[in-house]
Amino acid sequence: MTDQLLQAVTAGLHVIDLGRQLRVGMPQSPNHPQFWHTLPRRHGDMTRADGASAANDMITMGTHVGTHIDALSHVSQDGVLHGGEDAAEAGIGGKYVELGVHTVQPMLRRGVLLDIPASRGVSRLEGGDEVTVEDLERAEASQDTVVSTGDVVLIRSGWGQLFAEGAAYIGAQTGVPGVSEAGASWLAERGVHAAGADTIAFERLAPQGGHSLLPAHRVLLVEHGIYIIEALDLEELSDRGVHEFTFVLVPMNIFGATGSPVRPLAVTSA
Amino acid sequence: MTDQLLQAVTAGLHVIDLGRQLRVGMPQSPNHPQFWHTLPRRHGDMTRADGASAANDMITMGTHVGTHIDALSHVSQDGVLHGGEDAAEAGIGGKYVELGVHTVQPMLRRGVLLDIPASRGVSRLEGGDEVTVEDLERAEASQDTVVSTGDVVLIRSGWGQLFAEGAAYIGAQTGVPGVSEAGASWLAERGVHAAGADTIAFERLAPQGGHSLLPAHRVLLVEHGIYIIEALDLEELSDRGVHEFTFVLVPMNIFGATGSPVRPLAVTSA
Amino acid sequence: MTDQLLQAVTAGLHVIDLGRQLRVGMPQSPNHPQFWHTLPRRHGDMTRADGASAANDMITMGTHVGTHIDALSHVSQDGVLHGGEDAAEAGIGGKYVELGVHTVQPMLRRGVLLDIPASRGVSRLEGGDEVTVEDLERAEASQDTVVSTGDVVLIRSGWGQLFAEGAAYIGAQTGVPGVSEAGASWLAERGVHAAGADTIAFERLAPQGGHSLLPAHRVLLVEHGIYIIEALDLEELSDRGVHEFTFVLVPMNIFGATGSPVRPLAVTSA
Amino acid sequence: MTDQLLQAVTAGLHVIDLGRQLRVGMPQSPNHPQFWHTLPRRHGDMTRADGASAANDMITMGTHVGTHIDALSHVSQDGVLHGGEDAAEAGIGGKYVELGVHTVQPMLRRGVLLDIPASRGVSRLEGGDEVTVEDLERAEASQDTVVSTGDVVLIRSGWGQLFAEGAAYIGAQTGVPGVSEAGASWLAERGVHAAGADTIAFERLAPQGGHSLLPAHRVLLVEHGIYIIEALDLEELSDRGVHEFTFVLVPMNIFGATGSPVRPLAVTSA
Repeated sequence: MTDQLLQAVTAGLHVIDLGRQLRVGMPQSPNHPQFWHTLPRRHGDMTRADGASAANDMITMGTHVGTHIDALSHVSQDGVLHGGEDAAEAGIGGKYVELGVHTVQPMLRRGVLLDIPASRGVSRLEGGDEVTVEDLERAEASQDTVVSTGDVVLIRSGWGQLFAEGAAYIGAQTGVPGVSEAGASWLAERGVHAAGADTIAFERLAPQGGHSLLPAHRVLLVEHGIYIIEALDLEELSDRGVHEFTFVLVPMNIFGATGSPVRPLAVTSA
Repeated sequence: MTDQLLQAVTAGLHVIDLGRQLRVGMPQSPNHPQFWHTLPRRHGDMTRADGASAANDMITMGTHVGTHIDALSHVSQDGVLHGGEDAAEAGIGGKYVELGVHTVQPMLRRGVLLDIPASRGVSRLEGGDEVTVEDLERAEASQDTVVSTGDVVLIRSGWGQLFAEGAAYIGAQTGVPGVSEAGASWLAERGVHAAGADTIAFERLAPQGGHSLLPAHRVLLVEHGIYIIEALDLEELSDRGVHEFTFVLVPMNIFGATGSPVRPLAVTSA
Repeated sequence: MTDQLLQAVTAGLHVIDLGRQLRVGMPQSPNHPQFWHTLPRRHGDMTRADGASAANDMITMGTHVGTHIDALSHVSQDGVLHGGEDAAEAGIGGKYVELGVHTVQPMLRRGVLLDIPASRGVSRLEGGDEVTVEDLERAEASQDTVVSTGDVVLIRSGWGQLFAEGAAYIGAQTGVPGVSEAGASWLAERGVHAAGADTIAFERLAPQGGHSLLPAHRVLLVEHGIYIIEALDLEELSDRGVHEFTFVLVPMNIFGATGSPVRPLAVTSA
Repeated sequence: MTDQLLQAVTAGLHVIDLGRQLRVGMPQSPNHPQFWHTLPRRHGDMTRADGASAANDMITMGTHVGTHIDALSHVSQDGVLHGGEDAAEAGIGGKYVELGVHTVQPMLRRGVLLDIPASRGVSRLEGGDEVTVEDLERAEASQDTVVSTGDVVLIRSGWGQLFAEGAAYIGAQTGVPGVSEAGASWLAERGVHAAGADTIAFERLAPQGGHSLLPAHRVLLVEHGIYIIEALDLEELSDRGVHEFTFVLVPMNIFGATGSPVRPLAVTSA
């Protein structure tokens, strides 16, 4: 066995799951079709002559539900998608052929956690708090994890602690912490491959402001072709102090879609 | 950077995608809810005051559709699941709490391709052909890839060449090639973690025999707790002669489900 | 033309629509899969050689969503359905064969509106208000519409005025007005065929009480085999003072389901 | 009781169901999302403290599935809908606001069955047979049921006898009998309100011709604003020799959709 990767894998790994479990009733944006899971067939419904039985499922959901990734087809600005394609034209036929999520390659890349509340010395940011460029650089420095070209950068606000509370996590009244245009531009300057957060919308949302303005989406998806990952669970990474890792993300290969539910992993050698 | 895994990852990887693209109309078992994808909102439908627009999706599907993994809750024999839990009881509440797909850990493991048609000197097996123990051992020997405890073993029949033809891939008339009870027992003796194939049902299906008997599912899922992966695309692995690799599979974390669509990867150092 | 019905129909009818429009985002119980509608194919997506194009839809929903009818399979008490069938046994196979909504015959019957707020002299009842037997009898008398065997009785609380407000209509905090056990028993004594209301749950719900107790469902569905119709729009009936009419209801013929979305009509000769 | 309609209704009715039962696996066009029904909650899954339990459903389907009606938004010709609205523009926003199925009023009208095989003296027409103007007029005359303005006309081919056979009913190889442009024009000249048939596509389909040409849809929907009803069950009407009746059809009030599943009734005084 001489394959370097396989050697590392078989030597032992530690895997931290960054995805939220998909459960009926979990918090999600009301703009997207709700996650539902049901068992059309259960054991006991139909047993074969030889005593075997198979149970099965049906799921229905939006693709921007649970932990998920935005493809470049998700957002347009002034009528164009990343690269200049006419956004309305791109959707004719009912599939985003050029920039759909089927064009997002599986990721096995360097991942960096920027733990903002840890570097600020708080347990989590408040609703409406902006993660500023100073926050990003302070975290980078205090952790000694410099963000490099091609990395996947995960920005922790601590807001993920509210996931189990449902409405509080959505934060319609309180707003939600996150980067805004300046932070997004900083990420783009660093040449990251993808950026993620532990909130539904990635962006800083003002209290009672809803999703009316999403400048980080414009900067990242439209202007720079950088994927966005939302609703990550970054608490275990923070608890363990893991700031650098192999980031694994495999989107569903849905032809023409604007995003995909994902279950990203942070993996390190044991 | 001293993490062995991250060193291997950043040194460069070659990734082969083993999953089928999810497209409306692709072949799938009629026993499972059909895959459908549609865009509830397209660019042009609603543009924000600042010129931004977001498009989104809805998907609906069974979990044993497209390339997918079977959780241990999928199949029971004589009324019990793997480990002896009463199968009918296990489904009460509408979620398989003990053996649902949410209990399947993400996999980063040694993967082995057993290329049966290559070792037989044919391009693909015929419908109804059984992949015998002799076939498995001949492939293992000719490839010099001994199957070990904890591996994920992918058994290529070449039937995946028919995927684009739809009904031919399902093989209702012709039957489908695959292992039967003997082959499954051989895999279990080797202590594999999961076994996959390039067919919908994993098993050898007799011509016009349908899914009336599924002995390999009983042996693997029920008797030995070994996961089954179906509808893999193993053609590129075979074409490139890649028989040993890091196998990456991240199931959707659907609470209580019997399976999950997956997009497995075969990864090697470049 | 000698058919009496057809004579009446062709002489001219006035139709009042008692169903709510199905729209994404309308209020519904969170216990049921959300209504969603999307266009997989729009005009412009694919045009035939002869210049024709067809657009189409996908819908997904629970059956107790929007205006809907409960089949007798919907509720059980102490493990049995109406008529004494074991409720758990009845569901084996994934279809309620005996008491599913496919067994509910289309209705063209005498309908009676009991306009409770009108007879009380208020515009609508308050959350948590019980519609008592006295209320029912007062409305019956003041309107001069005696409820008879086989009728469909629609009980207006005025709560339907809140439908457009969403959360207020669900009434989690305020409770919802409706009959309780006594009112349901009165309806059963009158031998009605079905009973409806302008609320989601038909029952009186206590403030912050949720759906923990549903005695009217027990009395009507389980004990007496009387169908329940929910989320009706009874405002126009009340505004026009129409208290007696031909009630038309055609459930979807879904094999084995526990209910169906419906669009009931109140029809009178013009 | 002086309402003429209610008098007729309470005097006794005979109701013939013209809709197909919605069952998983029933024949439907592969162009539309498949009907699926499943029980997320069954009795036994969760019992309340007082011994009550509620079971519920999830359905997912296209709107042109099972017996259904086409709204005027369903088909466009040369880029325009009925009345001249630009068809691509009409779909922006994801809802057909002007001509969606929510604009189709419930129908209680004179219905006429034109029983073509009966008037030809055969049990059913063959695949690919055209129902000609001569056929329509012969049936009208032999039955003594003259089609009048505002009627709903149901054209029986006998093809509905094949519904239970699935693929034969779809008729991909054999073609399907039905009217073509000439028959549709005849219906339009008579000023019918809606026209229905016992086939999926309403039209005559040539053997192996698929749905490439649908001239009757153009004539009826686009040129004349006449609704089309498909996949009717007309066998009982024919068996009983009922050629004139009150036709009852209540579409689902789905905002912006192109069609709706329906369960039409033919009703006569008993």
